[in-house]
Amino acid sequence: MLVLTLGISVFGLVCAFFLARFVMQEGTGTDSMRAIADAIKEGAEAFLRRQYKTIGILSIIVALLIYSLYTFAKGDSDQAWRTTVAFLFGAFCSALAGYIGMYISIRANIRTASAVRTSMDRALKISFRGGAVSGITIVALSLLGIALLFLLYGGQTEPEKVPFLIVGYGFGASFVALFAQLGGGIYTKAADVGADLVGKVEAGIPEDDPRNPAVIADLVGDNVGDCAGRGADLFESTAAENIGAMILGVALFKYFGVAGILFPLVARALGLLASLVGIYSVRTDENSDPMHALNRGYFITSVLAAIGLYFATQYLLVINEGGIVNSTPANWLFGAGLIGIATSILFVYITQYYTEYHYRPVRAIATASQTGSATSIITGLAVAFECTALPVLVISVAILGSYYCGVYAFTGLDLRPASAGLYGIATATMGMLATCAYILAMDTFGPITDNAGGIAEMSQQPEAVRVKTDRLDSVGNTTKALTKGYAIGSAALAAFLLFSAYLDEVAILTGRPFDSVDIAKPEVFVGGLLGAMLIFLFSGLAIRAVGRAAYYVINEVRAQFKENPGILEGKVKPDYAQCVDIVTRGALKEMILPGFIAVAMPIGVGLIFRSLGVGAESVAAFLMVGTISGILLATFMNNGGGAWDNAKKFIETGQFGGKQSEAHKAAVVGDTVGDPLKDTAGPSLHVLIKLLSTLTLVLAPLFI
Amino acid sequence: MLVLTLGISVFGLVCAFFLARFVMQEGTGTDSMRAIADAIKEGAEAFLRRQYKTIGILSIIVALLIYSLYTFAKGDSDQAWRTTVAFLFGAFCSALAGYIGMYISIRANIRTASAVRTSMDRALKISFRGGAVSGITIVALSLLGIALLFLLYGGQTEPEKVPFLIVGYGFGASFVALFAQLGGGIYTKAADVGADLVGKVEAGIPEDDPRNPAVIADLVGDNVGDCAGRGADLFESTAAENIGAMILGVALFKYFGVAGILFPLVARALGLLASLVGIYSVRTDENSDPMHALNRGYFITSVLAAIGLYFATQYLLVINEGGIVNSTPANWLFGAGLIGIATSILFVYITQYYTEYHYRPVRAIATASQTGSATSIITGLAVAFECTALPVLVISVAILGSYYCGVYAFTGLDLRPASAGLYGIATATMGMLATCAYILAMDTFGPITDNAGGIAEMSQQPEAVRVKTDRLDSVGNTTKALTKGYAIGSAALAAFLLFSAYLDEVAILTGRPFDSVDIAKPEVFVGGLLGAMLIFLFSGLAIRAVGRAAYYVINEVRAQFKENPGILEGKVKPDYAQCVDIVTRGALKEMILPGFIAVAMPIGVGLIFRSLGVGAESVAAFLMVGTISGILLATFMNNGGGAWDNAKKFIETGQFGGKQSEAHKAAVVGDTVGDPLKDTAGPSLHVLIKLLSTLTLVLAPLFI
Repeated sequence: MLVLTLGISVFGLVCAFFLARFVMQEGTGTDSMRAIADAIKEGAEAFLRRQYKTIGILSIIVALLIYSLYTFAKGDSDQAWRTTVAFLFGAFCSALAGYIGMYISIRANIRTASAVRTSMDRALKISFRGGAVSGITIVALSLLGIALLFLLYGGQTEPEKVPFLIVGYGFGASFVALFAQLGGGIYTKAADVGADLVGKVEAGIPEDDPRNPAVIADLVGDNVGDCAGRGADLFESTAAENIGAMILGVALFKYFGVAGILFPLVARALGLLASLVGIYSVRTDENSDPMHALNRGYFITSVLAAIGLYFATQYLLVINEGGIVNSTPANWLFGAGLIGIATSILFVYITQYYTEYHYRPVRAIATASQTGSATSIITGLAVAFECTALPVLVISVAILGSYYCGVYAFTGLDLRPASAGLYGIATATMGMLATCAYILAMDTFGPITDNAGGIAEMSQQPEAVRVKTDRLDSVGNTTKALTKGYAIGSAALAAFLLFSAYLDEVAILTGRPFDSVDIAKPEVFVGGLLGAMLIFLFSGLAIRAVGRAAYYVINEVRAQFKENPGILEGKVKPDYAQCVDIVTRGALKEMILPGFIAVAMPIGVGLIFRSLGVGAESVAAFLMVGTISGILLATFMNNGGGAWDNAKKFIETGQFGGKQSEAHKAAVVGDTVGDPLKDTAGPSLHVLIKLLSTLTLVLAPLFI
Repeated sequence: MLVLTLGISVFGLVCAFFLARFVMQEGTGTDSMRAIADAIKEGAEAFLRRQYKTIGILSIIVALLIYSLYTFAKGDSDQAWRTTVAFLFGAFCSALAGYIGMYISIRANIRTASAVRTSMDRALKISFRGGAVSGITIVALSLLGIALLFLLYGGQTEPEKVPFLIVGYGFGASFVALFAQLGGGIYTKAADVGADLVGKVEAGIPEDDPRNPAVIADLVGDNVGDCAGRGADLFESTAAENIGAMILGVALFKYFGVAGILFPLVARALGLLASLVGIYSVRTDENSDPMHALNRGYFITSVLAAIGLYFATQYLLVINEGGIVNSTPANWLFGAGLIGIATSILFVYITQYYTEYHYRPVRAIATASQTGSATSIITGLAVAFECTALPVLVISVAILGSYYCGVYAFTGLDLRPASAGLYGIATATMGMLATCAYILAMDTFGPITDNAGGIAEMSQQPEAVRVKTDRLDSVGNTTKALTKGYAIGSAALAAFLLFSAYLDEVAILTGRPFDSVDIAKPEVFVGGLLGAMLIFLFSGLAIRAVGRAAYYVINEVRAQFKENPGILEGKVKPDYAQCVDIVTRGALKEMILPGFIAVAMPIGVGLIFRSLGVGAESVAAFLMVGTISGILLATFMNNGGGAWDNAKKFIETGQFGGKQSEAHKAAVVGDTVGDPLKDTAGPSLHVLIKLLSTLTLVLAPLFI
């Protein structure tokens, strides 16, 4: 099974390499296009270099802390270095996956812009396969890393112990993801808001106009935020959830042996294969909606993933009772996996309903924009609050449904119902994340097409080309929104896995059973209250960071316009690099405070409550109630922001007066307000709730 | 003790009567002032009449449901009628308190406007004592009702049972409060937003201009929302928290006897006396800031309340061990009470910090308004998210501090630490709510001065008079914000009381101990997730309701302007009554859906989870996590809304270009966005979280 997992991972990386070569062989268009693309490339690489330097330093500090914690507090120097190495390895793999994804995305953008001049199908393939490089690399690297650590740490001799030793890998990935998403999110929205406010509103020039000094920074932002940031986000999702499921598999060791522990990796590997087929199947013709092609590919991937899951459960999750094969567990757990796949499809549909302008919510915002920006924003807030209801219902049904599948799977066997039920939830999570590589490919498709549109606009391509890039761009907007819904849905489903992994970890550390988190105890309730508070505080700090970084951009653009009036007349080229540099420094500076609070607060809460004798339990409540609040607030932000964005786009199709109307101006304000919510704070919350899980897992010895 | 409580309650009502007479004896100014005040009076009374009719019908339906539940599901016809009567009595008292408060407030407004022409001190006294009528009546009626029920239901013979029989009183009060606050909140903001959008923004006429057809509706709204709505909110707070604390007192029966059960009532009665002294002490001179006078009165009230609490604990909470008096419990519990008083003072300061323009947060929003409404709103959102942190920290420390006071109070005695600790929290809640009548007087002072300003403006009083009413009005804005902070703080502190009352109730019903709410169980976790979701969904529906009701107003005002151009020229009087009627119908219609969901969802969740065998525990998690989310979201909304409001006021003092500047326009958008948050959804959430507690208490038999 390990060989299969390793083999599929390596095969995935090889496919990613060929996809990358496919993209790189394409033409790069005209000189003026190349000039712009080069500027984006330089800016993005400069940001990533500096960001990784900062993250690297922070990671080494944390690694030292982990090492000392395990050495001094736990007195276990063997676990100390294993956990520390796993942490650093996870951090490295996450950063590497982000880098590779962005490497291709900043090269696929210009090739898409060039290809769109001749063939829509070619442009779609370039942009989608460019995105797929990122998606496949992330999933394959995450699998490869875990499988390698499992092998190195002696998983073949002590399979029941090793999953606890590799939790550091998940924490490393989360730690990098937090800063990658925060820094990238702050960068992209500070540049966007800054460029829009001075460019569109003050100077009255269109979006992506080459006269705007912040326009390159804006295009760079799409790559570092949506591509590198969300890539790191889903890298750590797959890593953390695989580890959580493996830990649950330990509880089933006496039934399935090592197969129960490795099942998550095998299921994920088969999902990767399914995604590969889905990715290669995407093709379109000149005039049809590219979204159909992507939906078809997603459908193929889902069906194949279900088939893969069927075989994985039937081969790995059967009980051999003296020669008689009992496949009841396999059947019920396959059901749980199907629940997971269904959940991911439902999330995609619900997100579409709340963020696309074919439906009531977005149209209500557009209608309200006619009476000004205040009503536009009030209506948007109402939609954002309301849209949390359906996803929570779906997740609730999925958690309970898959839990009972797990319980039924082991009925009659000598097993605590809790462990059995949780393994059902784990299988559902595997089902939900089976299509992860495909979803990620759709996500990274977003910044590539966005950039392609920007390049076409700035290099003054003919109207017909820009219409086509606009079409691709608008599909990209939809897929970006879908991924966020998917990411938060999978985080919600997986949360339970990681909670129980934490409870197991504490039980092993203390040698006493620990399976209850009683929020009727005041200390535990306060732990939960503080967890929810962190979510709100962190959101506030993240939004404030965008505001502050945007302020630097606004001042710089204003200064350039003032010093050199030729810029606005189109006679002088503005100093793009200066803007890029300012956003880079601003974003890196502003990400520190929210990132620090996110890491420091759970530790502080754990230490304080340890002195009251309820450290582990209060931290568990902190984690659980924090996760609940995070799920709701992230959904609020992602869908609200997406709805405002598309309400503006709906008006731009000519409704309510179209562009330049008062309704459009009001909708632009709504869109700007939604930007830091949907692209900075919301996605950072996904990462935060998983960081809380992996952090508490790794630092559990501190709280006891 | 009952006599003391009843006596003080009646004495309070007598004082309220004299305060009311004091107000009514004042002059009512000029004819034009009377014409406006009469229109406000008519509108407010018409709304309250129709609202009470709707609430009355709904209450009777719920009463029938409660009666059938207890008769058929529990088979206890004695408890059935007692709970039903208590419910209806609570509903009636709450409605009565709201009516009396508003009766005076819509008469004090014109008298304040008239008095301000000659004496600031007189105007302050009229408006504040008018508010005090409301504050005192609410607290006194709530006490009187509970004490009477306790007496009637045989509290002197079976003191350990009766507290459980009167939970219906709290539920009745909460039920009325929910609809009073929702309906009033929707009314006030629909009128406000509607009047502002067409008047200020479209027609360019100032606030409170008599040419605006919605201006009377706007002034009516202040009374029905801030006065009747918040009155009902705090009526049910005091009722629910007294009952919760009495139920906890039952656990201490063997130590304190009936004194432990009646202590909450006595403490509250003494707090009422303290508030009366504080209220009578408020006076000012012509040129000083009226806020100083109110702060001085609050200080006096707090000190007296602390003294009253000292005597109450020393007389009631001592243990007589064979003639030897052990006053350790009294001392520690007095400490817990002081924590409560300190918490209320801290909440007042924190709220001031986040919502007054002397401090960083509001100034940051004002600064951001210079770059337009989008940045103004983004900064406001950041402030709103951040401002949840300090209140949560204070509440966390207060819960744990008072819990440990309770534990130490009973150390060495044969008592579960849990009950002892919870009684500490109960005492802290009593401390926090001791100053309730005074705080409420400050709150109702808000709509009175707001109305006085409107009357002065509309009757075209000289500039000097309007400067003075503006000063009173701005103080009123501050006090309104403080009350909301106080209301949410006391709800948070009291939440724990009501949780444990629910756990006790379930334990009695099932005959099995029930003191753990284990969110590590998937069903219980999902219960919590759904509780948090209700908070978000309800907020969304409440905001949407404002938007829809405002839309009716906008259309009406536009239609009047169009049909009769003479209105804008000031030649023809607009049809105020038509606007009042439209908002009334709109608000009553729109309050039904959110109100229904708030009541139906906990019942639905309880019934579904009962079929899974974990009804009571899942409902507990629903309640607790819902409360946590509610506390955070209400703080977010109240303080965020207050901050936007005052950022606008800060600019109006001449900063960043003053009135008519671009910054001011941007700040007006922020203020409008904040309105439905701080005056509709936020306050309704206070009520909702307490409704959840009392509802689950009363309907507990359903979930088992």
